[in-house]
This record gives sequence, C-alpha cells and structure tokens, in this order.
Amino acid sequence: MRPQDVIRKKRDGGALSREEIAFFVRGVARREWEPYQASALLMAIFLRGLDQTEGLALVEEMRDSGTVLDLSHIGRPKVDKHSTGGVGDKTSLILAPVVAAAGGCVPMISGRGLGHSGGTLDKLESIPGFRVNLSIDEFIAIAERVGYAMAGQTDHLAPADRTLYALRDATATVESIPLIVASILSKKLAAGLDALVLDVKFGTGAFMREEEQARALARALIAAGRAAGLAIEALLTDMNQPLGRAAGNAIEVQECLAILRGAVDEKTRPVRDLSLALAARMISLAGIERDQTAARALAARALDSGAALEKFRLSVEAQGGDPRVCDDPARLMPGGICTLEVKAPRAGYVARIEATEIGLAIVEMGGGRTRVEDRIDPAVGFSAEAHIGDEVRAGDALGVVYCRDEAQGQQAAARIRAAYQISDSAVARPPLIKEVIVG
Amino acid sequence: MRPQDVIRKKRDGGALSREEIAFFVRGVARREWEPYQASALLMAIFLRGLDQTEGLALVEEMRDSGTVLDLSHIGRPKVDKHSTGGVGDKTSLILAPVVAAAGGCVPMISGRGLGHSGGTLDKLESIPGFRVNLSIDEFIAIAERVGYAMAGQTDHLAPADRTLYALRDATATVESIPLIVASILSKKLAAGLDALVLDVKFGTGAFMREEEQARALARALIAAGRAAGLAIEALLTDMNQPLGRAAGNAIEVQECLAILRGAVDEKTRPVRDLSLALAARMISLAGIERDQTAARALAARALDSGAALEKFRLSVEAQGGDPRVCDDPARLMPGGICTLEVKAPRAGYVARIEATEIGLAIVEMGGGRTRVEDRIDPAVGFSAEAHIGDEVRAGDALGVVYCRDEAQGQQAAARIRAAYQISDSAVARPPLIKEVIVG
Repeated sequence: MRPQDVIRKKRDGGALSREEIAFFVRGVARREWEPYQASALLMAIFLRGLDQTEGLALVEEMRDSGTVLDLSHIGRPKVDKHSTGGVGDKTSLILAPVVAAAGGCVPMISGRGLGHSGGTLDKLESIPGFRVNLSIDEFIAIAERVGYAMAGQTDHLAPADRTLYALRDATATVESIPLIVASILSKKLAAGLDALVLDVKFGTGAFMREEEQARALARALIAAGRAAGLAIEALLTDMNQPLGRAAGNAIEVQECLAILRGAVDEKTRPVRDLSLALAARMISLAGIERDQTAARALAARALDSGAALEKFRLSVEAQGGDPRVCDDPARLMPGGICTLEVKAPRAGYVARIEATEIGLAIVEMGGGRTRVEDRIDPAVGFSAEAHIGDEVRAGDALGVVYCRDEAQGQQAAARIRAAYQISDSAVARPPLIKEVIVG
Repeated sequence: MRPQDVIRKKRDGGALSREEIAFFVRGVARREWEPYQASALLMAIFLRGLDQTEGLALVEEMRDSGTVLDLSHIGRPKVDKHSTGGVGDKTSLILAPVVAAAGGCVPMISGRGLGHSGGTLDKLESIPGFRVNLSIDEFIAIAERVGYAMAGQTDHLAPADRTLYALRDATATVESIPLIVASILSKKLAAGLDALVLDVKFGTGAFMREEEQARALARALIAAGRAAGLAIEALLTDMNQPLGRAAGNAIEVQECLAILRGAVDEKTRPVRDLSLALAARMISLAGIERDQTAARALAARALDSGAALEKFRLSVEAQGGDPRVCDDPARLMPGGICTLEVKAPRAGYVARIEATEIGLAIVEMGGGRTRVEDRIDPAVGFSAEAHIGDEVRAGDALGVVYCRDEAQGQQAAARIRAAYQISDSAVARPPLIKEVIVG
C-alpha cells in the first residue's frame, strides 16, 4: 500500500477500508507518511467526506495512535463534557466539581484558547501556582482522589490528532465534520471515559455559526461516539452572546468562584443554569442517578451545599495552586489592571452581539493567542453588562473592559462597542438551551 | 495574505486572483509555502478545477518562477514539439533534425522516462558519450549552431514546476488538466518558443486512455498556450500499440537512425509518417512555409536528402557523442544482449495490445525507472513484429525481447504475450493520426 493510492481512492470518492485508514493514521503518527501526503488526503476528505464506517475507523485508529488510559480501578463512573467553544464559556470549572461532589469521576483533558474562544487550561493557569501539565500518573491519581482532574493534552494521548490538527489549521481543512468528530472523540476515548456530554454551540461566538451545522455536528459526534462504545448526548446551546458576564481568563475564574460560593445574579444565572444542566446530564448519563429530575436535584445540591466548592479547593491544592483563592479571589487573582466602560452609543434594545469580535478584542489585549507560543495576560478581559433583549439608555455601560493601559482599553472598547447592535424595538431573549439531542 | 486563506478560497470553489496564484507559485519556488500547504491546494485544484483566467495565470507565474530564455538573437523561428508520451514514441529524434534542416530552430527541453513511457533524454544517452546536462549557454549555442539542441530541465527553467510535479506525483494529483497544462506550458514558454506542436496521445499506451480526455487536454493546452502568446496546434494520435517496431532506449535510436538514413519498411513507416506530419505542422506553424502541402514536401525533402541525418550527426558531435554512430549504429550502440521471441499462442488477428504492459515489461528489465535515482540499462527493449490488424499463425513471432539474460527475458516475454489479444475475425488497423486540432 502506498499513501498516493489511498489519497487517489478518496480523491475519486471511494470509501476507505479500515486498513487504509489505519495505514494513514499510523503513518502520520510514525512519520511514515509525509506531511504533504497527509494534507492532500485531509483536503480530499474535506471535499469528499467520510461515511459512518470510515468515520468510526478514523476515530478508533486515532484513539489507538497512543496510550488509552485504563481507569477501571476507579470505582466511580468516568464522565466528561466537551464544549465546541465560545466566549465566556466557563462551565467546566463549575460542572466538574459538581459532578465530582455528586459521585462521578471527571478526567478532563482540556485545550488552550483557540482563535476568539478561551481555553480551560488558560483560565486555570490564572490561579497562582496552578499546574496543568500533569504526568499521566499524576492525572489519574488526582482524578481518583479529588473526583476530577484537569490537564493538557500530552504526547501520549491520541498523538495522531496533534499532528493532524496542526496540519488542518495550516491547510484550511479544519471545518470538516468527520475530521472534527475524530479529533474530539479520539482524545476523549483515549482518556478512558464511560460517558460524554457535548455542549455544541451555535451563533455569533461559536465556531459553527448556524444552528443546523451545530446540530449536524452533534448528531455526527453522537453516532460515532455511540459506535465506539461511549454513552453520549448533546445539548445544543446558544452562543450569540458572552455566557454570563466575564470573558477573560482571571475574571472568568472569579465568576465561577462566586457561583460556587452561592452568589448568583441575573447576569451570571445563565452560567449556573447551563453548568447545572450539563452536570445533570452527566450524572444521569453516567448512571449515578438515571432520573433527570433527581439528577438535576443532585447537581443543584452539590452546588448549593458548598460540596462543589470544596472539590474545587481540593483540585486547586492537588494541582499546585493556592487554595486560598477560593476564599478571597479578588486579592489573590491577577490584577494590577485598569478598567474602562464601554458605553451604549444610543438608547434602545440590544438586538445582536457579534460575540466573536469580543473574543478577538480580548485576544488583541493579550488575553488569547494568535500563535501557539504566545504568552497570555490572564488579567485582561471584558465583563458584559448588557445582553440580548436588555434595554439600554445612551451612555449606559454595555460592559467593562479590563485592560493593561488606557490606549489598549480604548481600542478594545471600540471593537466591542461595534459588536453591539441596538434596535428601537424590543427584542426577545434567546433561549440558552435550544435542544437536547440524545441520538 | 496567508496560504490557508488561498487554500480555503479554492476549497470552497472560488476563483483565485492573479495575486493569489502568484503568491502560491512564488511561495513554492521560494519555499515560503510549506509543502503540505502546497499539496492541500493542489488537491483542492484537482477537485474544484481552475477556470481559463486562473489557468493562464498559473502557466505564466510558473514560467516566470525562473529564467525565461531569450533566443531573440537567433534569426530562425523557435519551434518545438511536445508529446504526452507513449511506448516507442521516438519522433523527437527525427523531427528535430528535419525541422532544423528545413530552417527552424528547435530548443527542446526534454524529460526522462516516466512510468511505462520512455524519455527522449534516456534514449539519447544510449549514444556513447552523449551529454544531456547542458548549461543554458551551451544549450542556446548548440541550438543556434546546429539548429536544434536537446537537454534536460534545469533548476533555472520553471523551477516551481519541478517542486510541484514531485508533490503531485506523491499526492495523487497528477491527472488534473489545468495542472498538466501549467506543467507542460510553463517549461515550454520558459524555453523561449514562438510555436509549439502538441502530440496528444490516447489509448492503451498513453497517459490519457480515452480519446475524449486527450481531446480535452489538447484543447486546454491550445487555449492556454494561445492566451500566453504561443502559436500552438495539436495532433491527436493513436497510442494503442507501440509506435513502429522498437520500444527501448538503444533500439529506438537505431530505428530512428535507419529512418534518417532512408531505410523504411512497413513496420517503421508509422514512425516516419508521424515524425514528418509533426515536422510539417512545426514548419507551417513557425511560418517557415505556411502552406501545409509545401511544408510536408519541405519536411520530406529534409529527410530524403540526408540533410536531417547530417543535422543529427552535428547534434551528436555538439553534445559530446560519437558521431560515427550515424554510420554504424549496430557496432557502436550498447549491445551484449540476448534476444528471445515472443510467440503467438494461437492463430488469428491482433485485436488489441495493452501497450502500457509492454512499457512496464521493459521498465522491469531495467529499461526505465521505478524511482528517480534508478540507473537505466539502455540495451533492453522489445521489437514489435505484430501490430493491430496483422494476421498471425500460432507460433509466429509477435516480436523480440532484448534482454540481459534468459530468465529476465522469459518474464518480460510472458508479460508482453499477455498484452496481446488475438481474435478470430479480421480487425481494422486504427488510423495513426485521429485529428488535427488547430483551436
């Protein structure tokens, strides 16, 4: 078998056999395929697609390109959540300790910020001392002891995905459903999960702008995940505006800590609601409490009782962070920052928010990366005070920019102000959870 | 501009601008595009196509990726022929001296054998001492003095093509009409031509098996060549059987020398006919003699008078070869070889010849390459005695294998025997020239 024969077959619209897909994935992992051969096949897959059998083979071969964690010695069910990413999307920091407190084990391999969208690892690293580069043994030990662990992808788990993702990013082959499915599921399956809940987002701040695209991705993920032996469901959620108030690494952690400590207001309620909804699906899907209503109650109790906050504290401690951040976040989280109000240019109702622009304004301030090697400024960000449907007067604060200096802040504020559309007539608030997809 | 943005545009079916195509071609030549980005774009072009404006831009940018020869000081019109390749396709060795003798200048940049198809350079190198690696200055000087010169592609002429061709070969993106057109024309245009006659072949021994494909390629070449300022025409010719008797480097040169010396029989007449037909089109297209009938007469006279043989002798001498080969080829060409008859397994009429199999049988004996670095055995080959329409008796020779030893010869003979289909009913001889395409 030669790479060009496999490429030719897909180029001409043929279905690749399990052997051909294994030859490709192993060839990439072992560097037996040249990168230019891999990228040619990725483009052929992008344009010709993969059928379900091919897609499953790709998921499984990518999973098996490295270590597959064996967590069978941990008695609790292993369950995780994956979000397709958005602006202010911080639910992992709440739902992981909630599910851990409810009796689950959440071995979460997370990512860095990507484009306009933040990453859980960057957020966690804004906690002084917090380490996300764990060895596999450490990761497993913490997941067992605390009930959850959060770490970055290592070279050991699904290494073919790392190589292929870098190639896809450089060759405009990212937005392909079978390739996205394989990338997500191969890593999750390598982490030894029993169950996975997906948060598939659509809207102006999501990678999939259209609800229909997001639904198609959710369905493809569920079909492939189930075929690979995973219990899997998806929530289709709205990402047409920042989730909650905070977008930016340190201020998102502070918002989560406030919620974990029981302080919720109108602006942060969606974060609590979505986190609990996802946690409840995780609890039921993992079999901790099959009944949805009971699962919701269990999740809410874990949060309201302070048990989730205690799990968070244990996690910070276990991963080298300063646990006092749980009691006094304002003093211990990165600061030394100035603030600047983004003012409404006119009166009316917030009709539309180009949420990606908010994410990119934060990236420009150093809150995200434009290149993999960029260092992040954890303190910059934006705190949204106006969401879709809110009535504002001219000069009211749409939100507050957290910036290093006035000039930087003014630039970000201008970009964010332009991202808001204000209309004269009242606008309905969009529902946060659009659909639950169970198969 | 980033490579991935150009790739994305073509991926989505958009038309690339001149600037985008220039960015790609220059990026490849200067190694500013990664090979994996170039191959992703090549696959997107393969599957999405290029329109005429894009195709012309690709031709011209590839031409301009290196030196463009200035032959304006040579008073005679610069005209060349390009064949898409076949088995026993040796017309260059006859038509170049014919056109030179008729007053043209043929600056021919040729290729090596590729797959089942022989290459002019490999054939010439079977002449003792013949050098095909000429400097540009040498090449121009010989073309001027002799009237024709034959050399290999250098790194100076259309260097982007060399890089792209190697990538296409390894990524199953060879058989794309706009990419083939750009590869052929960029090199020919860089050689400073005024006129180009194409020999586009179809059939069992051609790269394009179907006549329709070959016609489409010919039309695309003519459209792009004309847009780039070239006088250009095509003959659509039959490649369903070896052209003439000889297939193999040294024996093809010997067949050409026999024709140049005036010795023609029923089996070699198609070589003479096609060579003169192509030479006549070159003579008329270059404006040496516009009238087709007069151009044919001029070409025939150059051959029959011995003037073309004298040009050949001068060329061999100028390029370091032993000119006595013109007088006594049997003694001076590589030999030391044994011969083996391929016998007809039954009586009947030759109905079909899988000519590619003959080419591959010769490659297996060392007469061609499977890898670029392979050395060639110039003496091996096959001399066909039976062509389509010929009646044979059981045991008659279909042809003779020229081999290094009995075992090698038996293997080649078996493969070649299997390539012949013999039927009970009479079969018509296919016309050699199917169509003249002038635009």
